[in-house]
Formats: sequence, C-alpha cells, structure tokens
Amino acid sequence: PYAELAAISSVSFEGKTLPEVYPSMAKRISLTLGCEDEVIGSCDVVFASLPHGLSQETAARCDRAGKLFIDLGADFRLESEEDYKEWYGGEFADKGLHHKAVYGIPELFREEIRGKSLIANPGCYPTSAALGLAPLLKGRLIETNSIVIDSKSGVTGAGRGLTQTTHFPDCNEAFSPYKVASHRHTPEIEQTLSRLSGEKLTVTFVPHLLPINRGILSTIYASANKPLTLEELHALYLEFYKDEPFVRIMPAGEAVNVRNVRCSNYCDISLHFDKRTGRAIVASVIDNMVKGAAGQAIQNMNLCRGLPETSGLEMIPPAF
Amino acid sequence: PYAELAAISSVSFEGKTLPEVYPSMAKRISLTLGCEDEVIGSCDVVFASLPHGLSQETAARCDRAGKLFIDLGADFRLESEEDYKEWYGGEFADKGLHHKAVYGIPELFREEIRGKSLIANPGCYPTSAALGLAPLLKGRLIETNSIVIDSKSGVTGAGRGLTQTTHFPDCNEAFSPYKVASHRHTPEIEQTLSRLSGEKLTVTFVPHLLPINRGILSTIYASANKPLTLEELHALYLEFYKDEPFVRIMPAGEAVNVRNVRCSNYCDISLHFDKRTGRAIVASVIDNMVKGAAGQAIQNMNLCRGLPETSGLEMIPPAF
Amino acid sequence: PYAELAAISSVSFEGKTLPEVYPSMAKRISLTLGCEDEVIGSCDVVFASLPHGLSQETAARCDRAGKLFIDLGADFRLESEEDYKEWYGGEFADKGLHHKAVYGIPELFREEIRGKSLIANPGCYPTSAALGLAPLLKGRLIETNSIVIDSKSGVTGAGRGLTQTTHFPDCNEAFSPYKVASHRHTPEIEQTLSRLSGEKLTVTFVPHLLPINRGILSTIYASANKPLTLEELHALYLEFYKDEPFVRIMPAGEAVNVRNVRCSNYCDISLHFDKRTGRAIVASVIDNMVKGAAGQAIQNMNLCRGLPETSGLEMIPPAF
Amino acid sequence: PYAELAAISSVSFEGKTLPEVYPSMAKRISLTLGCEDEVIGSCDVVFASLPHGLSQETAARCDRAGKLFIDLGADFRLESEEDYKEWYGGEFADKGLHHKAVYGIPELFREEIRGKSLIANPGCYPTSAALGLAPLLKGRLIETNSIVIDSKSGVTGAGRGLTQTTHFPDCNEAFSPYKVASHRHTPEIEQTLSRLSGEKLTVTFVPHLLPINRGILSTIYASANKPLTLEELHALYLEFYKDEPFVRIMPAGEAVNVRNVRCSNYCDISLHFDKRTGRAIVASVIDNMVKGAAGQAIQNMNLCRGLPETSGLEMIPPAF
Repeated sequence: PYAELAAISSVSFEGKTLPEVYPSMAKRISLTLGCEDEVIGSCDVVFASLPHGLSQETAARCDRAGKLFIDLGADFRLESEEDYKEWYGGEFADKGLHHKAVYGIPELFREEIRGKSLIANPGCYPTSAALGLAPLLKGRLIETNSIVIDSKSGVTGAGRGLTQTTHFPDCNEAFSPYKVASHRHTPEIEQTLSRLSGEKLTVTFVPHLLPINRGILSTIYASANKPLTLEELHALYLEFYKDEPFVRIMPAGEAVNVRNVRCSNYCDISLHFDKRTGRAIVASVIDNMVKGAAGQAIQNMNLCRGLPETSGLEMIPPAF
Repeated sequence: PYAELAAISSVSFEGKTLPEVYPSMAKRISLTLGCEDEVIGSCDVVFASLPHGLSQETAARCDRAGKLFIDLGADFRLESEEDYKEWYGGEFADKGLHHKAVYGIPELFREEIRGKSLIANPGCYPTSAALGLAPLLKGRLIETNSIVIDSKSGVTGAGRGLTQTTHFPDCNEAFSPYKVASHRHTPEIEQTLSRLSGEKLTVTFVPHLLPINRGILSTIYASANKPLTLEELHALYLEFYKDEPFVRIMPAGEAVNVRNVRCSNYCDISLHFDKRTGRAIVASVIDNMVKGAAGQAIQNMNLCRGLPETSGLEMIPPAF
Repeated sequence: PYAELAAISSVSFEGKTLPEVYPSMAKRISLTLGCEDEVIGSCDVVFASLPHGLSQETAARCDRAGKLFIDLGADFRLESEEDYKEWYGGEFADKGLHHKAVYGIPELFREEIRGKSLIANPGCYPTSAALGLAPLLKGRLIETNSIVIDSKSGVTGAGRGLTQTTHFPDCNEAFSPYKVASHRHTPEIEQTLSRLSGEKLTVTFVPHLLPINRGILSTIYASANKPLTLEELHALYLEFYKDEPFVRIMPAGEAVNVRNVRCSNYCDISLHFDKRTGRAIVASVIDNMVKGAAGQAIQNMNLCRGLPETSGLEMIPPAF
Repeated sequence: PYAELAAISSVSFEGKTLPEVYPSMAKRISLTLGCEDEVIGSCDVVFASLPHGLSQETAARCDRAGKLFIDLGADFRLESEEDYKEWYGGEFADKGLHHKAVYGIPELFREEIRGKSLIANPGCYPTSAALGLAPLLKGRLIETNSIVIDSKSGVTGAGRGLTQTTHFPDCNEAFSPYKVASHRHTPEIEQTLSRLSGEKLTVTFVPHLLPINRGILSTIYASANKPLTLEELHALYLEFYKDEPFVRIMPAGEAVNVRNVRCSNYCDISLHFDKRTGRAIVASVIDNMVKGAAGQAIQNMNLCRGLPETSGLEMIPPAF
C-alpha cells in the first residue's frame, strides 16, 4: 500500500510486457520490461535479482544516486571477501560498499536494518536455517559442532532457466540430494549462526530437490549440551519469537508442513526432542519465493523506510 | 519363473477378483480374493501383509503346516520382546516361533536366511538405513553415537487406508516430517545397526512424507572416527557390495535419485564426505514397495528355497 | 474490506478453532467453529456449503431473519423441481423460497442479482461452461445441438471427504473421466445455456479428474451455423466481456492455462476455430474454489449489498 | 527374449554409456552410444527415433542393407505426399520407399504388417484415437463428420528437449490445451479413420498437456447415426477386440484411467453413451511411451519377423 511499482527491467525479456511473460498478471500489471537505467532513474527503491557478480555495479550506481538498494542476489551476503572468493570465485569490487551492506533477516537483525540503504537479502536456505536455530544458539543450549541441516526445496528455488534436472519428467516423481555439503549457501548459513552463537562454527548442510513448486523445509539436528525437555524447547521458541508477526511456532506435538506457508511471508517452526539421543530437532518451513526472497525483501524495504513492517505482506496462505 | 500364484486372500476385498481391486491387472491375473485358509491350504510359500499383532497366529499355522512363511508385517522383526512391547504394545504369543524367525536383509544376513521357514521381512526405512550404513559400521569408521537418519518416503508407504494426510489436496504440493524421533522403525533400525557394529547403539531417525507415489531416500549422517577421504569411502562401499546383484554404488560425485530405482529391487547408494566437519554422508534409495517390501520378500523366498536369488526380480527401472 | 468474519460453523469440526483445522491460518483467524445458530444469529450475510438437501432449511431460517443467504450448494440452482427430483432425488421444500432465489453468475445476470437476498451460487463446472459459451449463444452463431463440453477439474473439486479416488497414490500420476454424461451439473449447465440461447438445448458434458489441487479447464466444442473466422470469434468475446473485471480473453493464438487463474477470481478464455471442420473451440479456466465457489459468492454478496463488485477479490494469481 | 540389444546410437550423447544418460539402467545395460553406422552394421532390426525429415535417409540405407527398419518418427506415416508437405513442410525423398512402408497398428492392419521390412510406427495420439474409434467406424454407426477427439498427454510426450512449457514449475499444477486443431497428428488420425470408414473424413483434434509423466487419454465424441444403447456399444467393442492381447475393454459402467496401463503395452477402452444427445463417447488410454511408441514398435518387429506377438511385452502395469 505504501509502494508503487514504477518500472521493471529484464535482460531476457526486455521489450515485453509483464503479462506476456506471466499471463497470470494480465489486467493487473501492464508495465513493459525495460532496462536497468529506467529502473534506477524512476524508482526510490531498487530490488535486484541478478546472477552473482553482477549486482555490485548496480549497487554502486544506486548508492551514488541515493536509492535504497535491496539485493536478492549473493554479492553482499558474505562479509568475508575470502569466503566470497572461495565459494563464488569473485572479488569485492568496492570494499566500502560492502561495509555499508546489512544482512537482512529482520527477526534477527532488525535494529541494524532500520534506515539503511543497501540490504543483502538472505538466501532461502539460510533464512530457514537461521530462524530455526537462533533461539538454541542464543540460548547456548547446543553443541555447536553437532549441527546438521537437511533441507528440501521446491523447484522454483532452482530458478527459471532450463536444465535437465528441472525438466518435468526428470523432476516429477523424483527426489534427490544435490551439491551435498558443497552448496554456496553453506558459508552464509555459518556466518549467521556464528554471529548468533558468538563463536566460529561449521555445519553440515545438504539440500534436496522436492518435486513441488514452492517451499523449503529444513530439518535441523543438534545435540543438547545440557539436559533439556521438549517443553523447555517449546517455551524457549515461543518466548524468543513472541512479538514476531511472521514467525509461527507450531503447537507442541505438531509438525510443520510447507503447504501451510505457501504464498505467504510466514516461517513456521516445529520443535522436537529425541530424548533417547539427546538431540534437539527443529523443523522450519518458508515459501522460498516469499520469506525466502521477495517477501523478505519487502519486509526489509519496510524497515529501511520506516513503514509498518507487515505492509504488503498480509497474505494468508491458502489451505490448498 | 519358479513360482506360481496359487491363491490370495483379503479381509477387505474377499470375493472380488484381483482386477476388480486393481484394474491394471486385468487380462493377466484373474484370481478371486479368498480367505486365509485357502491360501495356507493351497500354497507352499505364504506372504503375509497384516496389521501388527495379527501375523503371529498365521505364522503359527504355517509353521504347523510346514509352509514357508514370509511376514511383511512387523511381528517378527524385533528380537527383544521388551522393545516389541514398548513400540508396538503387544507380546510375543509364542517365543519359540520368534526364535525361528530370521530377519531378512539378504545382503547382510544371507547365510542365516538360506533354508529357513519363517522370515521377518524388514521394514522399508530399516532396509534403506541398514544397507546405507553397513560398510561404515562393519569397518568401524564412525562414531556410533553420531548417527542421524533423515528419511523421506513416497505416499504408498502409508498404505492404502484412507487418511486426511494422504488425501490428495492435503498431500500434493506438501511436505512434512512425521513421527519425529518416534517412528516404530527406530528400534528395528537400531537392532540391525547394533548387530553390524557389535555394540548397542541408538540413532536419531526422522521420516518425512514425500508427495510422490514410490520411493524412499535416506540421507544418513555420521562423524568419522578417524581421518577419511571420499575416495576411501567410495572404495569401501564398492568392495563391500561388489558381488551384490541389487546394490548399485553411484559413481563418485553423483547423487542417488528415487526415480532410478522405481519399480525395481535395486538399492542405489551414493557417498559424500563433508571434510569441513568430518562427517560421512550416505544417501540410499529403494522402492519402498519392492526392495522395501514385496521384492525383498521374493528375494528371501528365493534364498529360503534355494532358487536363483534374482529370479522374478529382473525388472529394469523405467527411466521415467 | 467491507466485511468482517463474525462466526463460522461446522458439523464435523465444531469446537475446534479454524487453525486447528487449517494450520495455514494460524495467527490470522482465531475463530472457533460453532453451530449454525451462532452464525445466523451474529451475521448479516450467511454463506452455506452444505450437502444438497440441507440448505433449504437454513435458507428458510435466514429468510425469516432477514439475512442475505448465499448458498454454495445445489439446492436452489435448478429452477425446475422436476429436474431437481431427477438429478438430486429431492423436492422443493418451499416453492416460494425457490422463487426468490437468483442464480448468481454476475457476468451474465448482474441486474437480477443486485439487491436480492437469496443467491444460488453456481457450480464450478457450470460457471466455466456458461462464461465460455455465452457470447456464442447470445450471438446465435452455433448449432445448439452440437455442444460438447469436455471439462477437467483439480481434486479439491471433489471435496474434503476421504475416498479411494482421492487417495494420493490412486490419484497422483493418474487421469480419468468420471460420471460420463451423467454428472449433476449437466441440467444446471443446460438451464443457463438454454436461457442464454432462448431455446431449450441439451449438451454432452464429461468431467475428468486432474491430478492437481485447483483449477477447472473446460474445452468446449460447437459447430458454427454460418461461416466464421477466428478473428470474428476473438472480437466477439473481447466486446462481450469488455467491461468485466474478472474475465480475461487471451490474445489470439494463445491458449488458457489453469495456473494463470489459480487463487484468483478470474475466468480466462481462449478462442480457437477449426476451419477444416467448422467448429468453434472455446477453452475457459477458473479456480474451482474461487470463481467456481467462494470468490463468486463474495462477488454476489458485493452485488446484493451494493458494494464495489471487486472488493475482497483483488488477488493477483501467483505465477507459480 | 528373441532379441538382443546389439548397438545403440545417439547424436547428443555419442560416446557415453547408457547408464551415464539413464542411471536407472546401471548394472543392466552397459552399451556405449555410438553412431548410426555401427547400429546399421551390427543389427538385423533398426529402430529409429529421429526428428522428422531425417529418417528417410536412414530408411534407405537399411533398405539397401536388407534390414528391418521401424521408424518411430513421422516420415513414413502419411501416404499422401501433399499432406506431408502441408503438415511437415518436407518432401518424399524416395517415393518407392514410401510405397514399401506399412503403417503399423497391429490390431487394425496385422496382415499387412507381417513380413514387411519398413514400418511407420504410429504416433501416440493417433494410436489412441484409431483404437478407440475403429469398431464404431467399421460398424458404420456414427456420423463421420461429428467426431471430436479431446486428448490429454503426459509430459514425456513432449520429448526430452528442454522447453519453458516443460520446465517443472511451469508445468506442474498446470493444465492447458496446445496446438488446438492444428497438431501434426491430425492428418495421421484422419488417414487411419478414413481408411477404416471407407470415406474421407475430417475430425476436430485438440491435445492437452497433463502434469504427469506418462499416459494418453483420448475422450472421443461422435453422434450415433441410428438408435444405439450402451449395451450394444459395449458388446460391439468386446467382439471387435476379443482376440487382441493388448486391448482391454472396461466393464460397462467403469471408466479408463491412464494409471492402469502405465509401463505396459495395453490400450484400455471404456464405452459410454449419452442418450440425451445421442452421442457415443469412447475413452481410450495408452502409455504414450509403450503402446504409443516403443512397445508398439516391438509388437511390429514381432509381426514382421514372425515371432510371438506379445514377446518382450508382457509387463503387468504396476497398480501405483
């Protein structure tokens, strides 16, 4: 309600109207896809979804023009240039700009985000992992070297580019892990978790491709470092997220389901405790395209601009 | 080729022909579903898929009649009556019969199975977990208290009974964990893994419901107890399973996919090593209705009767 | 925006909160499901989704209490009691009430709906068929005895009750026609089409069950009764629906897709002409739960109450 | 059982082993994909799946070498060069070769196929349409200008090449018609139906893309040209196909389902009669990759070589 869609650009679809690319938007959005210049020229806030390496230049232009830049790509997520080099193979073009960037998970870093002008919008997997683990890490309740994150994502997470993996007959009625313990979201997850725990930690992270359109479920395992009960775990999360509009803790005994957050900005979390092995098990779900991307970007815009944090994000997930 | 389908029975469908229940079998199998007596009376080998608690009596009848009894249910899987009481709430009706029962994963317990007359056909999850972990445990290469098994199963695993969870709109485009760290297959998994490792161990086991018809993928995490490389891991599994007709080790660097084993008796396994955290990661896939149920039952029959182990099980999984 | 959800009732779930039944609504709607009395007592507008035969009594109560009653069931859709008897096996409890009822497809019968107090909200298939055929029938361009309606519906159309047909493994990777030329929506379709054409006509209507959650696509065939071109057909529809907020005519040469209307109140229509056989082919899509049910009900409420017709219905269908 | 896979070739995958392309075949088929020369050189029977236009040359080479050539592409399906030009845009390179070609639907043209050396293996849609309509046309029971064929195909029908339409998120939870009344299988369907009916006829044919992997369902509508009952219709089909091993007529009152023929060479047919409009409705299902392609090709090979017609085709469709 506080924003107006002024211009959009695309390299692949320049010159087409949005409904020509997405017929579902016919009669509602008639903008023609233009070039980056038009967007930067006519907007106060610029959202960018670019292949990694490309948004540094756009960010610099927005910075010079005094625009709020929200980067849905990976260029500004990692604070360490070394990590960026190792995992993405690139360099920081302008270190000063990287210093300005704030990593935007509002539930965890709200005060730092307010009023800023360059936001690194988090990856989808890292959002689900960080929200799932934050209370345990801040509460110092787990062995920090025991974390295993087993994540499963719908196919929109792989983008719109055509690949054999995402060809319907290859993908439907199929299921497999990919980039096992080598996905680029690993250092981003570790950066946030290290920050939350106050110590440098590493995790095992394995993503899988789910034959559904939307949704990420992360099943997170960590050994408790002291006796713990399910009730304590549940109470901890309820308290930690009690004022958060977009985090919902499932009733004790119930498990999350990706379908409950579809098309919404919610992160649902369920708590479980394996008392036979002393492991806390946290399951978190988000819609990878909303809380895991565009929705969180709007939430960040709201924070940066001092708007009500939930504005534009009030969709109730459809039951089916 | 060595067997003939002589009689089938069903409580729910008694009196119907098989094609009335499964039209896909029209023109091929015209048997009418009868009662248990008819089956026991006319068959040399009896396969039973009964709710737990009910097959003990049938097993006893087959035992008295000198029939080979292969139980696809859970009654004879657990050696410990205490475990059976705790997880299934029942008792061993005839302890002698339980002594006769052999747990039937041919790849791990082939010699014990040969010639026996009462087989406890393993659960689907336990088969995928045991085949995935056997080489590591027999090789004493992992911390036995570090095992996490994150499994995902297609919906046929939930049976044919109607539930809200398996109603198409509730299940399609959905994904969730269930019976987190409390599934009845847990003690069965632990029994086999303890036997393989030579020490009593516990594991964390979390199943999830995948919106596909068939297939189980288990992603298994365990900390190496000594320096290890992916190459060593891969070589270990190739050697361990080198003579097995139904186990296929993926080329190094490739991951398993449930679709590659669909409608077949194969178990595919891929190996991964997270050198940053020292965890071995094993992914195994089976078709829950074949290697996880009926196919393994036939393999057990072949072993018990001295037939070629692969006979009747030579289906090549369709590519799509 | 002009309505408030004051009370809801349910026979199956009485006493539960809405999020206990649909966890996707947690944090947003906390109402407890009560009984019919509470709803009629506390609401100005009552929406009913009841098995056929049951809403006549509720309608009568609302009528006496001066409430607007919008019936999503079938009781008031058929004007002919004979047809109702033949297809539903029941009788009109109060003929006067049936006289008050208006059949609510706003695009076709807007003026009759305005200000009324008893609305028969149309069936999902009849909505897609009537909107698809109205311009051709009003324009007298087709042989009225040549109409074939081949419809395909997502599984939510079958309701939430458990059946073998809608059990995931039976339904997934499956596709079949059902109630071929005998579905209860047939007389409802014929009633509307007869009204539009000014003559009593019959149609062949065959529904099929699609393995998706939401959406109806009707492919409609009719022989032109005079020479016709695709351009004329396209122009006719553009003109007929030019002021309609919820009908979208696809660009010539493009076909509709159920995914373009998902979670929205839109009806998309594409036009095709088989010049080799002289048949007009119209394809129309709706979301069976929105334009085919709850959305159209709200549109009707808006009309009855003099509210802006699109209020509460402004969802843009998500691209995926 | 009577054939041996001697060599395979591929332009896209030359040099790879078959399991590198389809891991599901690991341990079973280890052939390396070579070039066309190797296949023609080492095989007695050559099956070709080539883009249209390309198999004429291969057919000529096989003809000169005395090999049986079974073409799964479209080059030899149309008898009329004019039709071929109009719909495929090419020419007949060698008219003599086209004269030798036989159109291979064994159930309809068995005697012509026996002993031949060049088979035009039919398209998937044409197979389902021709088997569905043959008894009605041969029996002269329908108005030949009233035929509407509404077909729905799984996504493997679109081939393995990558397209936006078959990208999982575009295709899943989606459904749409395509190439409405303009699909290249139209003249092939008309050619067969004209041959069966003894008069040149045209049909309206509309294909749709189903979000499943395998299967075609054709719902076929035709007006009876004389009074007809469902019982007569059903009896006609039972009689017509009574000796056919691969055609199954559903019991009266039951409808076909694509899942009942999956992974098999069956064509299931159900009969329906709309007595209100006098239309016969036939629904036929096949697996587009088996009876609609490779299975029928093997059936043709068996016929050409005098082998038992069902050999190699005895798969029972899995229930799920």
